[in-house]
Order: sequence, then structure tokens, then C-alpha cells
Amino acid sequence: SIHKLELKLEMLEKGGYEHFMLKEIHEQAFTVRDCMRGRIYPNEGKIQLGGLKDFDEKLKTANRIIIIACGTSWHAGLVGEYLIEEYARIPVEVEYASEFRYRNPIISENDIVMAISQSGETADTLAALEIAKERGATIFGICNVAGSSITRFTDAGVYTHAGPEIGVASTKAFTAQVTVLTLIAFYIAQLKEKIKPDAMKVLLTELDSIPDLIKECLKTEEATKYIAQDIKDINNSLYLGRGIGFPIALEGALKLKEISYIHAEGYPAAEMKHGPIALIDEGFPVIVIATKSSSYEKVVSNIQEVKARKGKVIAIVTKGDVDVRKSADFVIEIPDADDTFLPLLATIPLQLLAYHVALLRGCNVDQPRNLAKSVTVE
Amino acid sequence: SIHKLELKLEMLEKGGYEHFMLKEIHEQAFTVRDCMRGRIYPNEGKIQLGGLKDFDEKLKTANRIIIIACGTSWHAGLVGEYLIEEYARIPVEVEYASEFRYRNPIISENDIVMAISQSGETADTLAALEIAKERGATIFGICNVAGSSITRFTDAGVYTHAGPEIGVASTKAFTAQVTVLTLIAFYIAQLKEKIKPDAMKVLLTELDSIPDLIKECLKTEEATKYIAQDIKDINNSLYLGRGIGFPIALEGALKLKEISYIHAEGYPAAEMKHGPIALIDEGFPVIVIATKSSSYEKVVSNIQEVKARKGKVIAIVTKGDVDVRKSADFVIEIPDADDTFLPLLATIPLQLLAYHVALLRGCNVDQPRNLAKSVTVE
Repeated sequence: SIHKLELKLEMLEKGGYEHFMLKEIHEQAFTVRDCMRGRIYPNEGKIQLGGLKDFDEKLKTANRIIIIACGTSWHAGLVGEYLIEEYARIPVEVEYASEFRYRNPIISENDIVMAISQSGETADTLAALEIAKERGATIFGICNVAGSSITRFTDAGVYTHAGPEIGVASTKAFTAQVTVLTLIAFYIAQLKEKIKPDAMKVLLTELDSIPDLIKECLKTEEATKYIAQDIKDINNSLYLGRGIGFPIALEGALKLKEISYIHAEGYPAAEMKHGPIALIDEGFPVIVIATKSSSYEKVVSNIQEVKARKGKVIAIVTKGDVDVRKSADFVIEIPDADDTFLPLLATIPLQLLAYHVALLRGCNVDQPRNLAKSVTVE
Repeated sequence: SIHKLELKLEMLEKGGYEHFMLKEIHEQAFTVRDCMRGRIYPNEGKIQLGGLKDFDEKLKTANRIIIIACGTSWHAGLVGEYLIEEYARIPVEVEYASEFRYRNPIISENDIVMAISQSGETADTLAALEIAKERGATIFGICNVAGSSITRFTDAGVYTHAGPEIGVASTKAFTAQVTVLTLIAFYIAQLKEKIKPDAMKVLLTELDSIPDLIKECLKTEEATKYIAQDIKDINNSLYLGRGIGFPIALEGALKLKEISYIHAEGYPAAEMKHGPIALIDEGFPVIVIATKSSSYEKVVSNIQEVKARKGKVIAIVTKGDVDVRKSADFVIEIPDADDTFLPLLATIPLQLLAYHVALLRGCNVDQPRNLAKSVTVE
């Protein structure tokens, strides 16, 4: 009966969901909101990041930002690169922590090094920070776990406030990292006056509405369940995206790998022609981020190339899309939003798709084989 | 009989090899030599690059180098990043041409943008250069085809002199690109006096011996044939490397993808724990660059992790290696050399392995399905 009690307790902790991962996917509308709370002021077009305010001068004059991370956090870093370069106009380099630490990295006192780690305990990331600190860089942390090693080691940081994440495959921690990086991009832009106050109001108002749009994205669950039935027996897949959709393709592929053990690989869509397209034959599944954006036409043409080789296309599209629907085998609709916020939306159906495929394959979703929640050894 | 004559002619052009690709793999000892001819002076510890000499001041004071490329050339770019950062101490960013051109890239007049393209006609790369030029950057080309669009558009450049490459999957053009990038890294280091003359003599003497070591690497063909028999029916594989071995893992995986249609993916070895290790079960093939280097011990431990999950390990090792042999299923020995030159050596057995696997699978090695030799449209 102790066992029974424990099971009941676990059910309570899962909030009625079958797995922690599913619970954490569904929590994202709230965790993204929590992450913004007290930080954005849409009516005033203002953003505040208490954790960074002592470093305003440093941020204004930074020569370069180097983002260091592993795994899912590295994908968040790639999103950060797009947003910080776009809005704050500072060159950003994203490095694998394990590669950075064993090189002789070029770091100066005008560089800012940002580490991203859910647990704040990732061994390679911590070791990379030690090198960056030795060389005089200012070091920031973007972590979820308060008081963790990385948060204690860094000069400053911004918490992701996503709450404890139990599922080994990261979901809500990822979207919270992306939210923090969006805030940082806007914050530096504000400091450097790269975004006009009116434009900032528009951006922050839209950001403020993202949690509601995430709720809309969660309604794609039925569609992902249906598609999961169709693709559950695949051995391989490609995930394609362009621009800010590229890191989302990488993250979507990683989720499928981690929990369903299907070999999925992310690529920038235009690179397909430089090799991966050779893989595509009848029924080969290609998941494409094909939402409305400046590169929409190009993505549509990539989809047609896949279809010309009889591949199977599953496309994430903007609500009301007409063109992609004509050639794709399956479409998943997400709400319209500025490209800036795409990662917070398009990620959701990809998480749900990975979850439902893994479930149908009988995998242990919350504790996939061979994986640990945080990699605290090399 | 015209048909017969054409076939005979083709045989002659193939120099007795069954395919252009195999011929081009075997040519590499000579093409790498051709690429260095007249450019290195080992006895004097001097390097000359006529194509760049008008830009010596620019190279000495460059703030950043941005390398733009697609596919195999992008992998050469990653090798260039390691070498230029290591020797010339200039931050390098490697960008997919298709991504660079559709962003609003941060480029200044103190930046040098280098495009890498075998054909010199890659559409995305050319378009990216146009943007870089508009923004005032100095633009260089690293091309194989003389007089091509990119060579005409750039301010300066260095030819790879690999001769015509017929096989669609790039081999000798890649090692020639890597050779040029090695020369450029040393050349900037010489300009900036970052390498002492004695050290430069040692490096150039070793570089001068690389064509002979490539001949040694070509002797791995028997080993790769044997391994190809064992893995010809696989559906998936991972390629792992660390440091300068990481881009080689990416390139090895791309070769297998392109010509054998097996889904192969490259990863920095330490990232395995952050997701891909979930794929590994009994017999899952993992190809590892495990030559002697500062990260050797770490790679050995990555191999043990794969073996603990009953994966199949094929390791590229340094001649005389003892430790990896204990746990790997297959080892392929290449000659000992400084890590700087690893890409020119470790690439060879990976090309041969891809070739022999494709051959056993009955694939059209020289003209793989869906692929074009140069991607001259978007």
C-alpha cells in the first residue's frame, strides 16, 4: 500500500497527465508567462532585466557575444544568435561547450560569454565558463535551477523560472530559455536604442500575447496524434527550417531522437540540395517548418522538391495556409505571429509529435534509454 | 560502335578506375601537392600566396573572418575556422550561404568574407557575397574552377588547383580546399608574426610530407572494403569527432549519405550524451575519429560508452594505437601527424568507406540520385 500511495502521489505530481513530459509540454503557456513576469512593460514599451542591469555599459559596448551550451540549450543558443544579431546588432557566436573548452578560444575583455544550462550543472559548460573567466570575459548564466553551480560562478544572469523539469527530454526549459534570449535581445536593443520605442511597444505587446498563442498551439495535439499513427514505424527523418526556423528543426529532430529512438536530423532547408536530398525516396518523412515568413516561397519550393521524389511531407504552417497544403501530406496549423516569436510556437507541435510517436512505440518517454537529465560528467 | 568508343574513352578518362570518384580519391596525394606548389618554402619557413598579397594589411588588421559556403565546402570552412583561430588568432564565423543571405548580417569594413565553392557557381554563395560586398567587406574566393562567377566577383582569392572533379560527391576538391585554408591560416600567422620562424619551418616541413602520408592513407582501401562488407546493410549511423576531427566526422557522414543513401549524421563526440546516444542499441554503427590528440582519452571514453550499449564501433586511429583497438569492432590505421593536418588524412578512409559501401549497395557512385554537381539554382 506504500507502493500504491507512491503511485497516487506520482499521479498527483503529474497533474493528471500520463507523463511528466506531457505535463511539462502543457505547462508552457504558463512557464513562458512566468518567465516574462515583471520583466516586460508593453504599454510603456520597456523591458527590465534586474539580473543584468549592473552590466548595462558592458552590454552596450560588447564587441561580441559568445553563447556556450550543449544539447537542447545549444539550440536555444542558435535562436539567441538570430535574435541578438537581428535586434541588438552584436555579432554572436554559438559554441558547443565541449568544443570551446578544448580549443584555445579567442576571448577578450570586450566579449560577453553567456552559458545556457537548464540544470546549471552541465560539466562541459561550467568548464568552458572557467576558461572564459580566466581570459577576462564577462560571464552570464541562463539557468533554470536557482543556486546551481553555473549561477554561482557567473557575474550575472537571468533565470528561466520554468519550475522543476522532470522529463529527461527538455521541453518547457527550452521555451523558457528562448523567452529569456528574446528578452535579452530586446534589452540590449533598448540599451543601444536599436529599436524605436513605438516598435518596442508593438514587439512587447505581441510577446505578451505569446502565452495565449501557445495555448492555441497545444490544440495541435489531436493532429500530432493522428500523424504519429502514420509515422510511428519510420526509421529515419529529416527536419528542415530556414532562418529562425532552422534551430527549431534541430530541436524537433532532437526530441524525436531522444524519446522515440528514431534517427532524425535537422538541416537548414537550402542545404538539402547539397547532400541530404539523396536520402529521399518514396515515403521518406520530412518535417518542414513552413510558416509565413520572408523565406516562405523558398520553403514551398523545398517541399515540392521532396514531393517530386515521393517523400512524405509533414509541414508546420501558419493558420489559413493555402500553398503548402497543396503539396504536403500533413499540415499542422499554428497561429500567425512575427517570425521573432516562431520558436516559441512551432516548437510545441514538434514536442507533441515526438511524444505521441514515442508513446505508440512503447518507449519510456520520461526516462529514455541511455540519457541522463543533466550531464554532470564529461 | 560509337557507343563502344565512348565507353572506352570514359575508361581512359577514369585512368583505369571503375569510377571517377575512386580515381579522384586516389588523385589526392597529387592534388594536395599541386595545391601547395610554389606556395610553401619549408627550408625558409616561408609561405607565399600570390592571390592575397595585395591584401596583407587587410589580413593583418582584420577584425573577423566570415566563411560562407554550402555542403562539403561548408565542412572545409569549419576546418578553416579551427586553423585560422588557432594560428592566426582572428575570430572566424562559418555560415551557411543560404542562411547568411536571408538575414541582415552584421558586416563591417574590417571584416573579411571568404567564400568556398568548388565550382565557383553556387547560387546561394554568390548571392551571399553580393550582400557582403554591398556592406563594404573585403571578399575572397576559394574556388577550383578558374574564371568561374565567384572568382570574377571577389576582390582576391586562392585557387585549389585540384583539376576537374567529375564525381558528384566531392573528394579531391574538399582536401584541396582544406589545404588552401591551412595555407591561409599559416599565411596570416606569418603576417601577424604569430608563429615563430622555427615553428613555421617545422609546420611547413610536415605539411610538405602530407602528400606522402595521403598515399599511406590510400592503403586503407583494403580495410575499408572489408568493413563495407560488414556494414553494407545498415540504415543509420553516427560519425563522431572532437576538435578538428568534428568537421571530418560531418564530412564523412555526408559522403555516406550522398552516395550510399544511408542516413549518417556527424556530431561533436561530447554531444552524444545530450541526445544521440538514445539511438544506440545492439549493432548500431558509430564511426569515430580517434587519432592521437589532446582529446584522445575523452574519445576513448566515448567509444566505451557506445560499446556499453552494444553499438558497433569503427574507429580511425593513429598507426600503432593500442587503447582503441581493445574496445572498437574495427580500426583503420592512418599515419601519425600533428592534429593540424588530421583533416587531410582522416578524410581519405572515410571517402573510401563510403565508396565501397555504395558500390556493394549497387548505387550509382558518380551520379547519386537527386544530386547535382553544383547547385546553381536556389
